[in-house]
Amino acid sequence: MNRLSQFAASLAVAVLAGLPLAAQASDPTDVIDYRKHIMKTLGEQSAAMQATLQGKAPAENFVLHTQVLAVAASQALVAFKEKVEGGGSKPDVWAKWPDFEKRMKELAANTADLAKTAKEGGAAAAQPKLASALTCKGCHDLYREKK
Amino acid sequence: MNRLSQFAASLAVAVLAGLPLAAQASDPTDVIDYRKHIMKTLGEQSAAMQATLQGKAPAENFVLHTQVLAVAASQALVAFKEKVEGGGSKPDVWAKWPDFEKRMKELAANTADLAKTAKEGGAAAAQPKLASALTCKGCHDLYREKK
Repeated sequence: MNRLSQFAASLAVAVLAGLPLAAQASDPTDVIDYRKHIMKTLGEQSAAMQATLQGKAPAENFVLHTQVLAVAASQALVAFKEKVEGGGSKPDVWAKWPDFEKRMKELAANTADLAKTAKEGGAAAAQPKLASALTCKGCHDLYREKK
Repeated sequence: MNRLSQFAASLAVAVLAGLPLAAQASDPTDVIDYRKHIMKTLGEQSAAMQATLQGKAPAENFVLHTQVLAVAASQALVAFKEKVEGGGSKPDVWAKWPDFEKRMKELAANTADLAKTAKEGGAAAAQPKLASALTCKGCHDLYREKK
């Protein structure tokens, strides 16, 4: 095979295996900075949401926090697709991509469901779904470097 | 007037003047922490959105960033209502509340319009509205302490 067909073949394998593609030649710093913007968003909004439930912040904002968490979770799924190690991410993010991707998709789906429940039924309806939706720690334990 | 009717009268004046009410006896640290969570969200998402426009991050996420900016702007309006000075906010936030509130309402309305335009027409349609929607600097110059 010539180089082009080798590339095409490896690309086809990657696509079939559901592996992330690093087709774009991005600056690694940009990729890591972008991921951090999104993960920080999730952290800030998660803390803010907890505050509304603990009576430390206006309860009326609870629903708005679940909405941001759902949208930011969708952003995160995209942000990690390009394989650029570093920035607090363990190499396993990409070495075990199918598991990581599955967890990120679940986070996006579960927070979307949480936001829908919160909008329709408020905090009382949404609260029982919080622990199963916000799986931050389980994923961080596996895929984030210890600080 | 006795104390109670004095309080009721001052409350009525405050309501009529559109001044913020500090009815809840919140912990000042909680109030400031909460504001910071939301302002940091706006900062992170604004930077992430810029990255998608500069080719430094996946363009497909642009619309999602405008959505978060719109929702977080609504959160911010609520977060500043309780008068607790500090945390980088100038006292003018509450001394000139009608102007501050007007600016925050404009931010919420303009980012909501931006998100709608982005969803319907993508980045090309939304980009001309960016400068007038994201009035961060104008408000920071007036109401945020210099770092």
